[in-house]
Amino acid sequence: MTRASDAPAELADAVAAGDRKALARAISLVERGEPAGAAIVSALYPRTGRAFVVGITGPSGVGKSTLVSALVRLLRASETTVGVISVDPSSPFTRGALLGDRIRLGEHFLDPGVFIRSMGTRGHVGGLAETTLQATLLLDAFGVDVVLVETVGAGQTEVEITGVADVVVLVLQPGSGDSIQALKAGIMEIPDVIAINKQDEPGAKLLLNDVRSIIGLDPDPEKHPEVVMTSARTGDGVADLLGAIERYRSTLGAGDLLAQRRRKSLSDEVVSLAAGGYLRRLRLAIREDDAMLELIDAVHRREVDPLTAAGRLAAHVVEEVSDAPDSR
Amino acid sequence: MTRASDAPAELADAVAAGDRKALARAISLVERGEPAGAAIVSALYPRTGRAFVVGITGPSGVGKSTLVSALVRLLRASETTVGVISVDPSSPFTRGALLGDRIRLGEHFLDPGVFIRSMGTRGHVGGLAETTLQATLLLDAFGVDVVLVETVGAGQTEVEITGVADVVVLVLQPGSGDSIQALKAGIMEIPDVIAINKQDEPGAKLLLNDVRSIIGLDPDPEKHPEVVMTSARTGDGVADLLGAIERYRSTLGAGDLLAQRRRKSLSDEVVSLAAGGYLRRLRLAIREDDAMLELIDAVHRREVDPLTAAGRLAAHVVEEVSDAPDSR
Repeated sequence: MTRASDAPAELADAVAAGDRKALARAISLVERGEPAGAAIVSALYPRTGRAFVVGITGPSGVGKSTLVSALVRLLRASETTVGVISVDPSSPFTRGALLGDRIRLGEHFLDPGVFIRSMGTRGHVGGLAETTLQATLLLDAFGVDVVLVETVGAGQTEVEITGVADVVVLVLQPGSGDSIQALKAGIMEIPDVIAINKQDEPGAKLLLNDVRSIIGLDPDPEKHPEVVMTSARTGDGVADLLGAIERYRSTLGAGDLLAQRRRKSLSDEVVSLAAGGYLRRLRLAIREDDAMLELIDAVHRREVDPLTAAGRLAAHVVEEVSDAPDSR
Repeated sequence: MTRASDAPAELADAVAAGDRKALARAISLVERGEPAGAAIVSALYPRTGRAFVVGITGPSGVGKSTLVSALVRLLRASETTVGVISVDPSSPFTRGALLGDRIRLGEHFLDPGVFIRSMGTRGHVGGLAETTLQATLLLDAFGVDVVLVETVGAGQTEVEITGVADVVVLVLQPGSGDSIQALKAGIMEIPDVIAINKQDEPGAKLLLNDVRSIIGLDPDPEKHPEVVMTSARTGDGVADLLGAIERYRSTLGAGDLLAQRRRKSLSDEVVSLAAGGYLRRLRLAIREDDAMLELIDAVHRREVDPLTAAGRLAAHVVEEVSDAPDSR
């Protein structure tokens, strides 16, 4: 349901004017896949591109949220305004925070220079990557200087989500053996900056050496990401991490690299949004359309092979789209 | 180019008759996205569904290939015929094997009851998941009793690939802290069977305890996967692992669960194949179509927002499909 106050033009103006409630409302509309949400982002899009977007990624449990919180504190010390989007289902931002976390994060929730929004992994009509992109654009138009996007894992979803980032920071901790192996085997892409968190735990030095030796495999030292040891809980090394992020940003700024990267990211995002919309239509058809249910039964009976069935399903969905007034 | 000997009907007959060269040729056609490859799978599809498909997944470096090799040896001891598809780019099957691996795997390459095929991660016209599914179907029609599909990681690609499996085995090793955290946080799905490989390394017992405590979080003991300690190099525990796989298979067999699981998997595969085909068309359009290149430029200039651009791109691709004689 679209309420009277959800008139896209008014909400867009309010977001651009720095109205926090309007921003929260607009993100909710985007999350629920309401046309008004898309209309607001569309209206605000010319005002975007000013925020610097930092992706904070890494396996579950390495302390990404605590690190994000420490980065926010540091950015706020220099009056920088910050938006945080958390798409890690195991993040305290997302789970509503345990008592300790709530105290730790509380200062940010009350700070008018910080806007925190966590995304559950369910219930996004447009898919998590789409919601994250749209929410990032809303924060950008709202006027924050920096957007921190916290995301978990090393799978495809995460790649799509960090596609929106200007800088990607990978956070690891002692015991992150699987990530080290994935980096070594070339299965995980080398990020722009690496933070080794929980630097006081045993194995941190060993992890640092492992990371350095993997990075060293690239003969071009210009492509070696900076590696920073941090302790998000004590705050040690967090200033170094911010320094590394800012140095990477300067590198991008010089020589038009940032514009190139953003063009590539936007191109990937557009493809990913179109693909996401199509996937939703396919899933809907296969769940609710009798002819398509019968098609799957025929595949199961070994009468129609999967690839032929996929072609028929695709043709079916295309027909539907061609008939529909809105082709999205 | 389709050669005279690539006539789909003849190749399909030869594959069904157990001709290894025809099988290799058919898989190559599938890999290259040739229509003949799809036609062969289509012709053979009614003969499939007999092979038991086991997905062997897990992070890079845990010894999946060595474990697969040990499982093959054991299966061959009971005259079971085996097909192996490796989609792990860091697997020795895929990389052409180092000297030690070559000796270890060599016995299988020469065994007429074993067919091994590795898939590079590049150059699959139809995408890796599509190629893997089609190759699995070809091995099934060829007549192997068991197909082992080795795949790396815990991302979306892997999920699509293991979707084809009747049983999914997750392989971990001491140091697999990231996977443990992902299982604990519910980010990685609990598999059907868990193998803790390199059981002689320090930390194996600790890992076993961690795994058991995570599994124990599900109050229904029927849903707890069996956990087996293995040493793929020495062969210790591999018979136990095969036993656990076979027990899981029996569970599926009773009560029609296998049929249910396969129907769901086939449905997912059909959607995934259709989505993959669409994604290829989107990427092609955005790379080669002038109007679409201009659209991305407009997004970059902040004139058209990404979601609107995605809608236009989708409409463009749909028009193309509607105009084309083959709607796949």
